[in-house]
Amino acid sequence: MTGAAAPVLLAGEWRQSLDAAGTFRADDPDRGEAFGDAFPISGERDLETAIAAATAVTEELAAADPARIAGFLEGYADAIEANREALAELAQRETGLPVSPRFLGAEIPRTCGQLRLAAQAARSHGWTLPTIDTGNGLRSWLAPLGKPALVLGPANFPFAFNAIAGSDFASALVARTAVIAKAHPGHPGTSRELARLAHAALLASGLPAASVQLLYQLPAPLGLRAAGDPRIGAVAFTGSRVAGQALKAAADAAGVLFYGELSSVNPVLMLPGALADRAGALAQELLASCTLGAGQFCTNPGLVLLPEGVQGDAFADAARRGFADAPEALLLSRGGLQHLRSAVDALIAAGAMVLAGGGDGSGGGFRCRPALLTVDGDRFLANAPALQQEAFGPVTLLVRARDPAQMEAIVRVLEGQLTGTVYAADDGRDDALYDRLAPLLRARVGRLIGNRMPTGVAVSAAMNHGGPWPSASHPGFTAVGMPAAIRRFAALHSYDHVPDARLPALLRDRNPGGIARQIDGRWTDADVGAGA
Amino acid sequence: MTGAAAPVLLAGEWRQSLDAAGTFRADDPDRGEAFGDAFPISGERDLETAIAAATAVTEELAAADPARIAGFLEGYADAIEANREALAELAQRETGLPVSPRFLGAEIPRTCGQLRLAAQAARSHGWTLPTIDTGNGLRSWLAPLGKPALVLGPANFPFAFNAIAGSDFASALVARTAVIAKAHPGHPGTSRELARLAHAALLASGLPAASVQLLYQLPAPLGLRAAGDPRIGAVAFTGSRVAGQALKAAADAAGVLFYGELSSVNPVLMLPGALADRAGALAQELLASCTLGAGQFCTNPGLVLLPEGVQGDAFADAARRGFADAPEALLLSRGGLQHLRSAVDALIAAGAMVLAGGGDGSGGGFRCRPALLTVDGDRFLANAPALQQEAFGPVTLLVRARDPAQMEAIVRVLEGQLTGTVYAADDGRDDALYDRLAPLLRARVGRLIGNRMPTGVAVSAAMNHGGPWPSASHPGFTAVGMPAAIRRFAALHSYDHVPDARLPALLRDRNPGGIARQIDGRWTDADVGAGA
Repeated sequence: MTGAAAPVLLAGEWRQSLDAAGTFRADDPDRGEAFGDAFPISGERDLETAIAAATAVTEELAAADPARIAGFLEGYADAIEANREALAELAQRETGLPVSPRFLGAEIPRTCGQLRLAAQAARSHGWTLPTIDTGNGLRSWLAPLGKPALVLGPANFPFAFNAIAGSDFASALVARTAVIAKAHPGHPGTSRELARLAHAALLASGLPAASVQLLYQLPAPLGLRAAGDPRIGAVAFTGSRVAGQALKAAADAAGVLFYGELSSVNPVLMLPGALADRAGALAQELLASCTLGAGQFCTNPGLVLLPEGVQGDAFADAARRGFADAPEALLLSRGGLQHLRSAVDALIAAGAMVLAGGGDGSGGGFRCRPALLTVDGDRFLANAPALQQEAFGPVTLLVRARDPAQMEAIVRVLEGQLTGTVYAADDGRDDALYDRLAPLLRARVGRLIGNRMPTGVAVSAAMNHGGPWPSASHPGFTAVGMPAAIRRFAALHSYDHVPDARLPALLRDRNPGGIARQIDGRWTDADVGAGA
Repeated sequence: MTGAAAPVLLAGEWRQSLDAAGTFRADDPDRGEAFGDAFPISGERDLETAIAAATAVTEELAAADPARIAGFLEGYADAIEANREALAELAQRETGLPVSPRFLGAEIPRTCGQLRLAAQAARSHGWTLPTIDTGNGLRSWLAPLGKPALVLGPANFPFAFNAIAGSDFASALVARTAVIAKAHPGHPGTSRELARLAHAALLASGLPAASVQLLYQLPAPLGLRAAGDPRIGAVAFTGSRVAGQALKAAADAAGVLFYGELSSVNPVLMLPGALADRAGALAQELLASCTLGAGQFCTNPGLVLLPEGVQGDAFADAARRGFADAPEALLLSRGGLQHLRSAVDALIAAGAMVLAGGGDGSGGGFRCRPALLTVDGDRFLANAPALQQEAFGPVTLLVRARDPAQMEAIVRVLEGQLTGTVYAADDGRDDALYDRLAPLLRARVGRLIGNRMPTGVAVSAAMNHGGPWPSASHPGFTAVGMPAAIRRFAALHSYDHVPDARLPALLRDRNPGGIARQIDGRWTDADVGAGA
């Protein structure tokens, strides 16, 4: 009975699912019960229609005026802003995250800001790296991929990482690449409302109507088939390691690019000088960061490495008191709660001890108690893979190192991570240890952070929200930050002795827009041949 | 009996293979017989020693002064140049390619030039894209991958793409990434001599001695295991599609980056105006390009799309006469000759007809006769995948299109290619057809070429020697051209509120070297805070 379910945004219009295999409803985390509209689980016909429609608009979209792309992104941002209260309330109901400050104070402004930065990037062309070699008659730039992108959004950011509103979405469109968005089934209503605003802004922009499509859910085998469809140019995924690795395998086998942001425990190193100065304050910082958003951030500090001894004990004691007193956390989903339980059990099985908290909450729904665990360095080294599994919730493991040599040994066995933080005194006491540990940590993380917790991902040209495998699929690309995130959806186009009039405008001799281009090795906004 | 075989360059020194599974000798293509020294087929112990040694120097190499890298590359280039006659003679014996002009006039100068451009790139830091966001306290650049690279070289360029001397080798080292080179077994002696020069230059530079290692051959299963070893950061491969896809699958499964340059037929479109002006001259250009290097180039023009009718016939007739009169070609290897035979048979089976040439040569050894085939547009469209398989030799298929609509249909079914060429009159007669076909071709190729044949790959910042799948593994990267080729071996490193003194020199406020950096969206060589 697909007639009763919400429509999907398919091939440029809102339609009933062509072949829904079933329906689902969002869960209210507060009560642990489904509510609201039924949404279709799309089948093969929906998927095929989406891929065919996205493929059909690829050429027109690739040739679109970037100003039109920018206009769409800005119109969409304005529409989200104008509807922010209603959106925030709906998202609150679907995710359990607070309307304020989370949505109205942080995530929605960030989402709109990101769309506007993407619009700027479209207008500035900075992502294209135009390069001109006059001696060899060669010119190149980064151009649209030439095939649509499949974007799969995560549970934890119904706006900023939504498949129909987040960084992957905006990045692909700046690269003039059509998006097939597969929303996260945890917030289908929010995704539908966003898609309505996106669709209206798209129609107003004059871009092809099928440039943006939305499916709410696909059966897992169909999701894998989509990721491995050779008509797809790239898959962008944010989510669990297990799901990400399965999608990656499907994409890899078909030569489809896969950009995944998979998992991370975001190690935080506390050096003795920093602990001596402010163990209590640092414990408070950890608690605040670890419990923010119920700990459901990719950059949640899930592992703190600190020395044994008095200063480490002071920090651990303060953290223990903080976690013991922390309010219960409301998780996004039943599955998330189950995963958290299993992850904590696995940490305990691998040798960790609970210092505070843990277990389900007393308030019903998807509630849990924040948990602080500890393990000594020897045991960590003996069980390093099991002890750095992501719990995805308000859980932190303290790892106590016997001495600097053991700290170094522990850093050496860390897997690839999105972030790594070092708290160090700034008066020189920690410098020798910093110089020993930071290069090792640096090589294992995407973003190295000084004296602050890893939660909080600025949308910046210098951000890396990515890292070495298995935290992400390619260490050279970031999922957040313009223009670098855009380049994931680009193909390098070289022109060899192509006459000026047949070149893209940005690669011609004349540069009326004053775009930064690298000509014979120098960055300049001048025309070719204008002299130095 | 490994004692008799040539030594491998392992863990910083020349040693007998630890566990050779057997030995092999180079074939002399001219006689079709093996000659010269025996070289070991390395086993697990050699491979394990190489990976362990490369891993052990990773940190030291990543921290090395780029000037030292540049010094190594320049010293190596000088040494190749000083030994060029002996190297060229040895390579001639192993490959059948001529000492002159091929090696002394083209490939060796190009190889040395490429090493020197890489040295410049190391000194200029342009590949690192330093990016500073003062408002958010974030700085980023592209940094060494943090794990060694496995480089597998092809048969067809014993110098310019040699695993121990070519673009992949130089690119990885500029990114301060150790290289385990697996030479192509077609030219083991040349590879050994190059490795001797590389090793001596490396020792003179003061870089870690195990930064560069050489194995001559690995059994195929061991090669796959190497590509999928999680201690390897990236695999760079140039060669056949079958071997490349197997290596890619192994690398993908382990989260190892794979950069492959796999195969391409490099379609050439002849528009009516260009044909009317100079059909005979264009046929000569085709013949010269298709038979250069016995057609064994990745960018060999293997498919020419041209209209039916008088002008197309004039071109086809001239090309037929040229191919019929062309001298026999000496291929690199017995395997190459067998592959060529099979490929021509497969084209015929798929509906192509031989217009001229084909078959084995009469002079013995690995000789063949250049072949020109033809097929009509309908048949091509009915059998498009089979008719665009790479023969890797002096073989071109003419595809005759009935009308512009069929030309368009044919371009639409082309697979991803390294290059695509359009010959068009420059007086406007071909403009309408150019505008119809070029955007379609553009989306399917890495390098779009105007009015010249695709052979000849300049080492240039604006080169793309890569393309959409399946011609290459990632359409955003090139295998040739500094600085872009270097970025394949880079990880994006972001620094978040890291104090100035703890930043890499290139990201600090002061910029005494005047390196181009993007600060708050603008490219500048000024210090941070120096004003606009």
